[in-house]
Amino acid sequence: MKRNYVKEVMELGETHEKLLLKGWVYKKNNIGKVCFLHLRDKTGVIQVVSERELCKDLRLETAISVYGRRSINKKAANGFEIQAEKIEIIARATYDKLPFVINKKEIEANLETQLNHRTIALRAPKQRAIFKVQGEIVESFRRFLREKQFTEINTPKIISSGTEGGSEMFVVNYYGKRAFLSQSPQFYKQMMVGAGFERVFEVGHAYRAELHNSWRHLSEYVSLDIEMGFIESEEDVMCLEEEWLTRLFSHIKKTCEAELELLGAEIEEVGKIPRITLARAQEILKSEFQKKSPEGDLDSEGEKLLAEHIKKKYTSDFVFITKYPAKKRPVYTMPDKNDKRLTNSFDLLYKGLEVTTGGQRIHEHELLKKNMIDFELDTNDFGFYLNTFKYGMVPHGGFAVGLERLTMQVLNLKNIREASLLPRDLKRITP
Amino acid sequence: MKRNYVKEVMELGETHEKLLLKGWVYKKNNIGKVCFLHLRDKTGVIQVVSERELCKDLRLETAISVYGRRSINKKAANGFEIQAEKIEIIARATYDKLPFVINKKEIEANLETQLNHRTIALRAPKQRAIFKVQGEIVESFRRFLREKQFTEINTPKIISSGTEGGSEMFVVNYYGKRAFLSQSPQFYKQMMVGAGFERVFEVGHAYRAELHNSWRHLSEYVSLDIEMGFIESEEDVMCLEEEWLTRLFSHIKKTCEAELELLGAEIEEVGKIPRITLARAQEILKSEFQKKSPEGDLDSEGEKLLAEHIKKKYTSDFVFITKYPAKKRPVYTMPDKNDKRLTNSFDLLYKGLEVTTGGQRIHEHELLKKNMIDFELDTNDFGFYLNTFKYGMVPHGGFAVGLERLTMQVLNLKNIREASLLPRDLKRITP
Repeated sequence: MKRNYVKEVMELGETHEKLLLKGWVYKKNNIGKVCFLHLRDKTGVIQVVSERELCKDLRLETAISVYGRRSINKKAANGFEIQAEKIEIIARATYDKLPFVINKKEIEANLETQLNHRTIALRAPKQRAIFKVQGEIVESFRRFLREKQFTEINTPKIISSGTEGGSEMFVVNYYGKRAFLSQSPQFYKQMMVGAGFERVFEVGHAYRAELHNSWRHLSEYVSLDIEMGFIESEEDVMCLEEEWLTRLFSHIKKTCEAELELLGAEIEEVGKIPRITLARAQEILKSEFQKKSPEGDLDSEGEKLLAEHIKKKYTSDFVFITKYPAKKRPVYTMPDKNDKRLTNSFDLLYKGLEVTTGGQRIHEHELLKKNMIDFELDTNDFGFYLNTFKYGMVPHGGFAVGLERLTMQVLNLKNIREASLLPRDLKRITP
Repeated sequence: MKRNYVKEVMELGETHEKLLLKGWVYKKNNIGKVCFLHLRDKTGVIQVVSERELCKDLRLETAISVYGRRSINKKAANGFEIQAEKIEIIARATYDKLPFVINKKEIEANLETQLNHRTIALRAPKQRAIFKVQGEIVESFRRFLREKQFTEINTPKIISSGTEGGSEMFVVNYYGKRAFLSQSPQFYKQMMVGAGFERVFEVGHAYRAELHNSWRHLSEYVSLDIEMGFIESEEDVMCLEEEWLTRLFSHIKKTCEAELELLGAEIEEVGKIPRITLARAQEILKSEFQKKSPEGDLDSEGEKLLAEHIKKKYTSDFVFITKYPAKKRPVYTMPDKNDKRLTNSFDLLYKGLEVTTGGQRIHEHELLKKNMIDFELDTNDFGFYLNTFKYGMVPHGGFAVGLERLTMQVLNLKNIREASLLPRDLKRITP
């Protein structure tokens, strides 16, 4: 007999057919001789009504098969319930005690406890809903880029030298040699543009040995990376991201309706995203909020205040901050042609948090080499990278989006760990 | 003016419009006052005819824009060429000498040299074609599984303890603690089935500290992993893989026609894949080829001979080898209910090479715990994993496919490194 998912059963038209559902006992209530179960599967939760006798062995989280028919009950969620004719146990629950209650509106345990028992916490539909949305973010990213002639690549995460200057890297013993975990596929994605793929993207892990625990950093995260050749300037890159975000938000609305409702998240329209220079952003903070910023950057309080201002003035949750100073950006960043102290770079802030870094890159061999020397990097360490630039390297640029950060901001989560199935941080390496 | 890709231009109907192409100078030939260029972009190569004067500065691999019109020339590939009206240089080539010739049918350099100059080697369309096919393998995998209600997951690659017994692992310094790079998402994908996702897949890196250089092993590779709950036996898992492979091969045929032709690869139909037990496979090798096998396994010569036999008898490039002995399979493998010395496990051989390992897993807490003790594993190290099995863990199974291996076999490549953009092995950590 074919299994029916809860969501299918909810959407069935008039039916008196016998159905087979499988899932876990989510709630259980005996009233007189009748037992009311809530059966939870991957797709939802449905009420099951049965004789008390049929349910007598069922502890919470037991896996069961339910054979029965659908009937109308206006009091049940979605107006339906299952009248059970037979219940079979698929797998017994053998725990002593659940680490916390998962069948109420919220899990009553702090985040650390939930993460310690992640496979239990994720049984709560609201927790799993986060990852449905995250999955659709990735799906939308890939689908959009494939349509735009981008090629998906997989690049090494074990590398011989750092791309961003070598700080905050995890060291790997690679057959007795000192190697590192990659902070970013930056060099490789540029090389693949040069190798003739022209436009590439990667969805892969990136590693940062962050020396403090924060609500917005992970030691291992998923980076959504793109790099594209034949651009005019970083404006092409920002336009591409803008177009994707517009597409993404409509994709999420369409594919995650139930999840967004469960999570109480509203998805607003993405319009034209304002672009303001860093210098202008710092001025606004000073004049509007009497807020001083660190040299060549914004701090997290500044990002939040700026978001308020932008929201009020442009009704946008997003803002591109452009033209960061050269000394605050990585070695490969293209200098601004009008003012060499500035660069063709940008950050994207979303609800007051940086979710993207991007820009145009240097494509001239001599300029890149000179920059490496200015940055006190050993050009021999990066020969494999630098070499690519001798063979007609075209103007190019790209960006990187932190997947967990974007998920967190879309869903208004409080801590980035909520947007990682099994987060890694300064203190956490299990489960 | 909008850029036209080579492939688009080839597919245009009758047109006298002015076109703009961008790409690299792939070949160049002067005949009298006329210059014949081959322009290469992401999508193909096209002949460009121009006055010699327009091309005088163009070294091979210079990036250029070509403005011109398409005309018919039966001698040119595909019957078309571009009559150039203007040529602009986008980026100059400044190399002293190309490391090898890339515009002939084959690159005349050994694989090591090609890998040392990977961004040059990949400019040869035939090299890049491999990764178009690889990209479509991944695309087909994801699309198929999403249709089948699978959820894509991302699980940690930095882990505290090994899943396959702890040998051949890379050690990471994780904030002063000893950690490892994951050999497989095995434990995590099982945990996510239990956490209520029911069916999950992951496309991610896996790491093996292989202590020998071979044509079929990489130290870092891409693993296509699935795990599914509510199964009856490993047969459900094999059926799913069979269905995917059938779909995959038709997807590749449809989306990679030009690349398959360039690579000289033929894609055969996948029919019903024969299943034979390991014991039977060993018998066949003995009786048909007088070939002895190692205990509880096949060696690589045995795999090749068996493939010949299967091809002749079933006209199949694939064969599932089933029922491996318990002592040769990992701790989580489900014992066969008729003979506890055997397991519900399988390997998939494709053209005589193992491309998949899979099977049903143990889902009972007590049995798994006992097995861990029998395997001399410290159950405290794996508490986070073992715990999941107390909460109604359903019967489940899955498989893992090595992406580079599968690509290699589909395209009849000789060395797995050809199927990795930037391979990592015992000796190689750059580029």
